[in-house]
Amino acid sequence: MEKEKALKGLKVVDLTSALSGPFCTMFFADFGADVIKIEPVTGDQCRTWGPLDEESGESGFYAYINRNKKGCTLNLKTEEGLQMFYDLVKDADFVCENYKGGVTKKLKIDYDTLKEINPKLIYVSGSGFGQTSPLSDRPCYDIVAQSMGGIVNLTGFTDTDPVKVGPSVADHVSGIYQMVGALIALHYREKTGKGQLVDVAMVDTIFSLLENAIPNYTMTGVIPERNGNIDPSISPFDIYHCKDGFVAVGVGNNNLWRKFCNVLGREDLIEHEEYATNELRSQNYEPELKKIIGDFVLNYTKKEMENMMADAGIPCGPVLNIEEAINHPQIQSREMMVHVEHPTAGDMYFQGVVPKLSETPGTVEEPSPLLGQHNREIFGLTEEEEKRLQELGVI
Amino acid sequence: MEKEKALKGLKVVDLTSALSGPFCTMFFADFGADVIKIEPVTGDQCRTWGPLDEESGESGFYAYINRNKKGCTLNLKTEEGLQMFYDLVKDADFVCENYKGGVTKKLKIDYDTLKEINPKLIYVSGSGFGQTSPLSDRPCYDIVAQSMGGIVNLTGFTDTDPVKVGPSVADHVSGIYQMVGALIALHYREKTGKGQLVDVAMVDTIFSLLENAIPNYTMTGVIPERNGNIDPSISPFDIYHCKDGFVAVGVGNNNLWRKFCNVLGREDLIEHEEYATNELRSQNYEPELKKIIGDFVLNYTKKEMENMMADAGIPCGPVLNIEEAINHPQIQSREMMVHVEHPTAGDMYFQGVVPKLSETPGTVEEPSPLLGQHNREIFGLTEEEEKRLQELGVI
Repeated sequence: MEKEKALKGLKVVDLTSALSGPFCTMFFADFGADVIKIEPVTGDQCRTWGPLDEESGESGFYAYINRNKKGCTLNLKTEEGLQMFYDLVKDADFVCENYKGGVTKKLKIDYDTLKEINPKLIYVSGSGFGQTSPLSDRPCYDIVAQSMGGIVNLTGFTDTDPVKVGPSVADHVSGIYQMVGALIALHYREKTGKGQLVDVAMVDTIFSLLENAIPNYTMTGVIPERNGNIDPSISPFDIYHCKDGFVAVGVGNNNLWRKFCNVLGREDLIEHEEYATNELRSQNYEPELKKIIGDFVLNYTKKEMENMMADAGIPCGPVLNIEEAINHPQIQSREMMVHVEHPTAGDMYFQGVVPKLSETPGTVEEPSPLLGQHNREIFGLTEEEEKRLQELGVI
Repeated sequence: MEKEKALKGLKVVDLTSALSGPFCTMFFADFGADVIKIEPVTGDQCRTWGPLDEESGESGFYAYINRNKKGCTLNLKTEEGLQMFYDLVKDADFVCENYKGGVTKKLKIDYDTLKEINPKLIYVSGSGFGQTSPLSDRPCYDIVAQSMGGIVNLTGFTDTDPVKVGPSVADHVSGIYQMVGALIALHYREKTGKGQLVDVAMVDTIFSLLENAIPNYTMTGVIPERNGNIDPSISPFDIYHCKDGFVAVGVGNNNLWRKFCNVLGREDLIEHEEYATNELRSQNYEPELKKIIGDFVLNYTKKEMENMMADAGIPCGPVLNIEEAINHPQIQSREMMVHVEHPTAGDMYFQGVVPKLSETPGTVEEPSPLLGQHNREIFGLTEEEEKRLQELGVI
């Protein structure tokens, strides 16, 4: 029996482009909302981002993040295009956008304008610095939000420069927060009929991930610095070289320490005066204890380490590269990789859906739209009308 | 006029501890749900995590992540304690938990058991490997999920070991995903009356942040590797040393390149045969172009660079340490740092609320609970009954 879609019947008018906003509307689409992606007539900029399919020229990234959405084009700078947009908004549940601050007002598509057309509308904004702030008009990239939000300074080894998180966490996590805000607003609207503005800033997003570093500073006055792969207050807790790569091992308490020493064949360390408690181990981890463990781990492969530690009940896992992660039975069994057939690029194989809902699972059923693919359907146009609007540069 | 709370009236029975689950229930609490945090009689483990307030011994981390929640204690391994828990569940909207796989079944508090008591219940599970998977019974820490999820291998410089993201992104982002799943399930329940299970795994969470690395591999067969602070397909896009620290600069297109060359006083580079297009700049960034920019940036402070780039409309921002981030006008104006008065630790100053909702903003109004503070209120006990249950080790 086919499962139901939790967000079926909700209409999302999606002005977002590139990354952060589209990641939010991807959740809407995966859980069944009717997402209408509006692109400029030149297309979302990420249609040109590699990897591109050799024959069709289709972007793998665009295809991934825009699956399950319908696509149309609209030039909002034309009078007719703007009116067509307003028509779409009239019965929309959500408008999502991630323009640079100030742009929506200039285009007359800001929340204050649209709520006059549809007071029940929930308007979801994602941006670098938020809708109201000293820097809200500034352009922002993920690397800037990561830097100003504080995560760059906390990532990397003590003796190297700070390093950004490889993937675009500011963009992505902002997208997830936009979804949280949108759904909270939806619940409120269902009770009261009132729409509202949801405003998520990438810098805030990164800042919210800093966890203990903030109370550590406010309570002690000491500025936390980066520690590479160790945890300054738990030990051993590190990533080690092994025969064929790296493994992470976390020994979070004395019980695990006992088990870990047994695996190492170093029962003498369990009650050793330098290592008997977590506090002692944290103080005395470098250089001696780190070396003892490092030398041990070097004798094994990732897989051997993983199995030994699993048998002993000690948290451990290999550092996987993309190929290994994609093909790992864990990722496969969780359906974190999915296939979809694209009309021009053929089989596409990319990330699945994270929150698993037992009754209303998110699924990937439709490929991303070709540029303007659903123009006639969405705007209710005849072939002639479509042609006329194309020639005018409206769609 | 005081604003309303969007999630007011929702009852969340919160079994979570430490980090990932409590981060999810923090959103519930900040937006007005009635969150009842259930701790073992010995307290949530993170009550012992530093920084500890010198006089009261209160944990800054516990206080931050458990603000706005009510607290009670319960020994679920006692018959009476389990019955008291079932009573709480009868009219709950959500139960949230982040035990290691298999534990809830052993404790008889798994979804299949609780849905018999309350079919409308939404049960939110956060774990390392998910409720159903090859590794679901294994223990997991953030560092293990980061490693197996693929983000560690993509973070760090090309010539150094891979490095984990400093803060616990697997725990935190899983918590945000749990909230997304919970709210999608809530919407469905409002339409149909049906509850369900929401299952979020930390490894899936990390994997979902890898963005373009996945289609890059599936479409080209090339395994993406870490690139430090540069972007292999956009240039210049890097973090540079300046007089008093580091700044991130992103020059994403030819228009920005022109402006950037003007600021550098190097108009000769705009149409230079090695740098005239983004593709050329990406190919020829190292070593020459990187050095030209690096030498320029070294003459300025973070603030000077930020101002120059802002004037030119080029995305740029300083790498801020915790102290600088906390005190930055941007963070302050967004109310990303908030105060709350704690009954024993006094003024606590920590992270605010990320999604900003115009009509129903999340707020921090109540401090975290003392251990068992709301036992009488939540279980409806007299002083004598409370004492009896304490002596029996039930609460």
